Amino acid sequence: MTGQNPVFIPGPTNIPDRLRAAMNVQTTDHRAPDVADLIAPLLASLKKVLKTETGEVAIYPGSGTGGWEAAVTNTLSPGDRVLIARYGMFSHRWIDLCQKHNLDVEIIECAWGEGAPADEFGRRLTADDGHAIKAVLVTHNETATGVVSDIAAVRAAMDGAGHPAMLFVDGVSSIASMDFRMDEWGVDLAITGSQKGFMLATGMAIIGISQKALAATATATSPRCYFDFNDMINANRTGSFPYTPPMSLIYGLRESVAMLLDEGLENVFARHRRIAEGVRRAVSAWGLKLCAETPDLYSDTVSAIHVPSGFDSGKLVEHAYDAYRVSFGVGLGEVAGKVFRIGHLGSMTDAMALTGLATIEMAMKDLGYPITLGSGVAAAQEYYREAHHIGKSHAA
Amino acid sequence: MTGQNPVFIPGPTNIPDRLRAAMNVQTTDHRAPDVADLIAPLLASLKKVLKTETGEVAIYPGSGTGGWEAAVTNTLSPGDRVLIARYGMFSHRWIDLCQKHNLDVEIIECAWGEGAPADEFGRRLTADDGHAIKAVLVTHNETATGVVSDIAAVRAAMDGAGHPAMLFVDGVSSIASMDFRMDEWGVDLAITGSQKGFMLATGMAIIGISQKALAATATATSPRCYFDFNDMINANRTGSFPYTPPMSLIYGLRESVAMLLDEGLENVFARHRRIAEGVRRAVSAWGLKLCAETPDLYSDTVSAIHVPSGFDSGKLVEHAYDAYRVSFGVGLGEVAGKVFRIGHLGSMTDAMALTGLATIEMAMKDLGYPITLGSGVAAAQEYYREAHHIGKSHAA
Amino acid sequence: MTGQNPVFIPGPTNIPDRLRAAMNVQTTDHRAPDVADLIAPLLASLKKVLKTETGEVAIYPGSGTGGWEAAVTNTLSPGDRVLIARYGMFSHRWIDLCQKHNLDVEIIECAWGEGAPADEFGRRLTADDGHAIKAVLVTHNETATGVVSDIAAVRAAMDGAGHPAMLFVDGVSSIASMDFRMDEWGVDLAITGSQKGFMLATGMAIIGISQKALAATATATSPRCYFDFNDMINANRTGSFPYTPPMSLIYGLRESVAMLLDEGLENVFARHRRIAEGVRRAVSAWGLKLCAETPDLYSDTVSAIHVPSGFDSGKLVEHAYDAYRVSFGVGLGEVAGKVFRIGHLGSMTDAMALTGLATIEMAMKDLGYPITLGSGVAAAQEYYREAHHIGKSHAA
Amino acid sequence: MTGQNPVFIPGPTNIPDRLRAAMNVQTTDHRAPDVADLIAPLLASLKKVLKTETGEVAIYPGSGTGGWEAAVTNTLSPGDRVLIARYGMFSHRWIDLCQKHNLDVEIIECAWGEGAPADEFGRRLTADDGHAIKAVLVTHNETATGVVSDIAAVRAAMDGAGHPAMLFVDGVSSIASMDFRMDEWGVDLAITGSQKGFMLATGMAIIGISQKALAATATATSPRCYFDFNDMINANRTGSFPYTPPMSLIYGLRESVAMLLDEGLENVFARHRRIAEGVRRAVSAWGLKLCAETPDLYSDTVSAIHVPSGFDSGKLVEHAYDAYRVSFGVGLGEVAGKVFRIGHLGSMTDAMALTGLATIEMAMKDLGYPITLGSGVAAAQEYYREAHHIGKSHAA
Repeated sequence: MTGQNPVFIPGPTNIPDRLRAAMNVQTTDHRAPDVADLIAPLLASLKKVLKTETGEVAIYPGSGTGGWEAAVTNTLSPGDRVLIARYGMFSHRWIDLCQKHNLDVEIIECAWGEGAPADEFGRRLTADDGHAIKAVLVTHNETATGVVSDIAAVRAAMDGAGHPAMLFVDGVSSIASMDFRMDEWGVDLAITGSQKGFMLATGMAIIGISQKALAATATATSPRCYFDFNDMINANRTGSFPYTPPMSLIYGLRESVAMLLDEGLENVFARHRRIAEGVRRAVSAWGLKLCAETPDLYSDTVSAIHVPSGFDSGKLVEHAYDAYRVSFGVGLGEVAGKVFRIGHLGSMTDAMALTGLATIEMAMKDLGYPITLGSGVAAAQEYYREAHHIGKSHAA
Repeated sequence: MTGQNPVFIPGPTNIPDRLRAAMNVQTTDHRAPDVADLIAPLLASLKKVLKTETGEVAIYPGSGTGGWEAAVTNTLSPGDRVLIARYGMFSHRWIDLCQKHNLDVEIIECAWGEGAPADEFGRRLTADDGHAIKAVLVTHNETATGVVSDIAAVRAAMDGAGHPAMLFVDGVSSIASMDFRMDEWGVDLAITGSQKGFMLATGMAIIGISQKALAATATATSPRCYFDFNDMINANRTGSFPYTPPMSLIYGLRESVAMLLDEGLENVFARHRRIAEGVRRAVSAWGLKLCAETPDLYSDTVSAIHVPSGFDSGKLVEHAYDAYRVSFGVGLGEVAGKVFRIGHLGSMTDAMALTGLATIEMAMKDLGYPITLGSGVAAAQEYYREAHHIGKSHAA
Repeated sequence: MTGQNPVFIPGPTNIPDRLRAAMNVQTTDHRAPDVADLIAPLLASLKKVLKTETGEVAIYPGSGTGGWEAAVTNTLSPGDRVLIARYGMFSHRWIDLCQKHNLDVEIIECAWGEGAPADEFGRRLTADDGHAIKAVLVTHNETATGVVSDIAAVRAAMDGAGHPAMLFVDGVSSIASMDFRMDEWGVDLAITGSQKGFMLATGMAIIGISQKALAATATATSPRCYFDFNDMINANRTGSFPYTPPMSLIYGLRESVAMLLDEGLENVFARHRRIAEGVRRAVSAWGLKLCAETPDLYSDTVSAIHVPSGFDSGKLVEHAYDAYRVSFGVGLGEVAGKVFRIGHLGSMTDAMALTGLATIEMAMKDLGYPITLGSGVAAAQEYYREAHHIGKSHAA
Repeated sequence: MTGQNPVFIPGPTNIPDRLRAAMNVQTTDHRAPDVADLIAPLLASLKKVLKTETGEVAIYPGSGTGGWEAAVTNTLSPGDRVLIARYGMFSHRWIDLCQKHNLDVEIIECAWGEGAPADEFGRRLTADDGHAIKAVLVTHNETATGVVSDIAAVRAAMDGAGHPAMLFVDGVSSIASMDFRMDEWGVDLAITGSQKGFMLATGMAIIGISQKALAATATATSPRCYFDFNDMINANRTGSFPYTPPMSLIYGLRESVAMLLDEGLENVFARHRRIAEGVRRAVSAWGLKLCAETPDLYSDTVSAIHVPSGFDSGKLVEHAYDAYRVSFGVGLGEVAGKVFRIGHLGSMTDAMALTGLATIEMAMKDLGYPITLGSGVAAAQEYYREAHHIGKSHAA
């Protein structure tokens, strides 16, 4: 087959042609003045996406995992205590990374399908009257379970406890797709990557840094060099980089941010919400359940869906690819075999989402799932139609 | 919106990335020896696609209409009689072109939805005992009505009449998607373009030329230069072109033919048949009717579908584009407003076809068509599933 | 070798990345409203490049040769007399095309290296008191000899003779690189292509049409359909095309014209003049002579250079390609073996031009030409330096 | 200006179209089986480029600096002593990185223009009878000074001293352009990146790891996670990655290695040597001197050239860019203002090298340097001609 089937993995996302063109550049001198001139505007526009006016932004050749490493090595010292809840594979991996960097990780175990436990965070922080906890780490959107957490609630809990810990947020699969308010939520480090909401190729870590986090670098003794915040920020201020920058992704990022701001951030978020809700209607129509436990936790970028008992979600994803050449996400970690995931973030349209729903329906039916062909599609169609109708009325 | 929605117009078709890459070339010297070396193998492989061993192939910068012009100006003289049936916009336009080139066009009027009337051709040819008719012109796949005609039957009728007329076939929307047998069917001129089954950008006319047609150039007095067969064939034989060749499309065509032969022509045809049949199942499920009158006329590259009386198909297509950014084909000529068309040729997969079906269902529902959301999708899904199941069994 | 050596053929030219990106598009519906919306602005901007306010512009899938055919078939009738001078391969080929279209071609034979003989045109037209001559055909830039002709002088001669013939100009290798003033020079048909000054892939003919030429279509009886002016202009007025348009080239053309107008047409011309003059200084330094007989005939887009007697220019071009993978133009027709050509049009910089000069010097030396390595390069360098110095002073 | 001027910075290098096409990919599922299938062959072919049969190869989203960090954090512990010589900006930066990772760095200060002091390494290692030195770090090609060091000599010195320290080599600007023999030279860690000899976009660190280095990870206590060798190697063995891989660069790397092996590594090295020698001939002809002190130190990938006293090399590079839009390398660190650099690595041809020489000659002349226009070009031309002539003879 020779087609242009979209992917429905929860990132990397489908790349719009406009961004492929932007990344497909011949080499230019990264020390030339016209390259220097693009850095400041690019960082300024990234701040709009992160909704920060007081913070800094740094970009590194790396992945989101590199962003996590940058976060903890720049601001913390070996032995420092951090508080984090484990409720999916990505919060699990961040814990692992912290431990490898010799932090004292206080873990709150949650069911996979729950979100960040703001109340429990509050209790732990209140109990920490010696302020041993230096940072609270939250995975905004847990890609493994399709759960979005309430960062504002976490901030409120921290403030309620009167605790000075920093707040680090993994926004890899939320930022630029779901609302993210760095300043309003008091986020000290916001971590994302190029390959999700920014719709680019993988290879760039993007980090929002509050002044408080930046100040913490002065005393943090974790060894670091490649991901050093100050080296990057200081170089950027003079229009340069501490080492060879990935110009292809930088040009791509400039164009990506322009696309996001052209569409309007709130419109981008609304589009993700609409598409996601259509997918959720389909899940309901199939008689299946999301991994996310309650509607307030439903992610607008990825839906993790429980397969009926007796079925193996890994085989479903494998079959969809083998038979129809369409990629979905498998279950990871504790939910391996139990959930499959539909990524619906980034460059996604109603029509594309329906492609995914129609295909996974075929795959489920092929494997004997008790679902009715077309049922999920119809539920999503109905929702998308209504949403457009409302859009029209609102526009009128 | 920012998506990669496929198009469902009956050409130009969606372009696979492999072909976009092949066409995206920097300029090289078209007189360099390595360019010359690609011509002969390219023409040889095109003959495989046309299923001719005895014919020649010529390629021109131009469109399919240019191919028609090449056909009639190279082989006929002003005043020559040609026999052609009108059963759609593209047969109509070919008639118009012939008249503009001062041919004596004997037209058989058919209903739009019928195919080439082999029997009537036979009668006309039998009656033409003076052999005034120099060529019979047939539109293999009438893109306006989604009707494929039986070229073998036309050849049989010609042979039955013992008539020496040449047989010219417009295969623009059939060749490389549906079976085409130039030698076996005794086709003297087979005309196609780059932008349909070859999945490339528009801009190249491709013409298969029998030795009989080539011989006819010796006496044909229609003025010609740009599209001259002999100039092109003779230049090609020395590894050159009579004027600057469109190297981007030539490199693309080489890759396209490689893709087609890699997949296997019969597999390509089977894939088109499967996808088309799914679309037809959807049409049935909606309770709608194809423009093509009988199943033997159903095209595997485009389905023209009657809208219910009281609806305007033009508005449907317009709405699908406005609301969902998905393109379908409008009705043309006699069936303007009455049919819409789903193109399902070229780089197309089951998943992509379902995208189109799901989208047009939404659009129809939005406009009050009496259809059930998901019904067409479900019918197509069921068929695609079965087809894959059978494929698996056959493979085992 | 793996390099990005430029080509120095006189077209197709090197393609800027910006235009490769513009042409590298996925299929969209050519009947969609946003496509329709681009036609009128594109044609308007093309008029700026042609410097016409009163004329029309039509674009066709085809080559420059197709543009010639469009010109004569739309405006003339079989047997019509046209006046044309032969002074190179491209004027020769246009003559051939006219003869194939049954025109009565009055040919003025000139030496290859001369330009359009305005005085002789004047004499012939004055002698033609019956106004049998319907059109004067002039090759503005004869690509085979590197000769640019004075179109204003031809117009003056026509006016001096008080003759109503139309003026058709082949501007394939001049338009968008050297000054061209359609209205001021009274050009009735101006023909060019996508692959020269427009820096695009080959495959599009672009034709400027005066109202007088358009009026001539009413009585012209040459058969035509594919290249029909009225079909194209009328379709374009409604935002459509008479057949499938080559969208890749159309998007490319839109971007190309934007680049030209961004740089400024006069700046584009000045750049071509500067680069060409550097090449000519190199030719002098080598002790070689241009094919163009006098400085007023020197083309700014291509230099045809006589090789010393006893040398074969074809072997030189072949050797430069074999040894250094750099392409130059061979001699054509009467000057085959006698001249080689350096194309320096389109996307060309001083640095690129020096690449060509340095390479051909090596190739000449390899073959025993009596030239001094570096001599031509030095002469060009000196000129380019001065030109930049002057540019700076002017800017200051 | 609109041209395709090459860059002459010492990396990132000019990117061949073939590699731009390879990197310009739509998103596919990095967990799909066909992606997994490419990892093992890719790593195997990379070993050929590094000339290792016993080592492992790991690739990371990152830059060469990331590769340095990976090297020292995976194999060393805080307080470990490493021996390194400082003779340019890149050896300087590696020292800085080691210090930031709390290593005990024993520095041998050398003049900038010297290479790795094998004899002094031998003396230091011999003196270290307690084997406190855990690793010797060598910058194979010091990009700042255009100096290539003799790694075999360093290995001999280490062996002569009977010292068990590991040997880490920064091969960022040498590997895939100049000969590198990981196994033969006993290199324990070989570090490079995507953007030099591999001719790709920046963004990937590539590391060759000996079994000895891999064994050292068991006891190394430097904190690490993102760049962990074992996580990567173990994941790769199962066809996966520990985090989202940069597929665009991975597909590019596969094609790059194919290009290198197609050309033949020894041919690639010979091409670099030839092009570099031509540049050196030009430098001589200008009467200028290389920064590298003796011919055995001359790099085949970058030439650092002393400007005459009284001139500022930074202004020269700036002027070349402003006036001619051609990029060269500035002097860095101790040689800032004193040298300019011509990068001649990666996708480079004789013709491209001459472009650089001709341009920098103009720029030097513009700024009053006492050089003769064309002199350097002529010297390089003469050499390239001879080299081709010899090549022909050898081939015959």
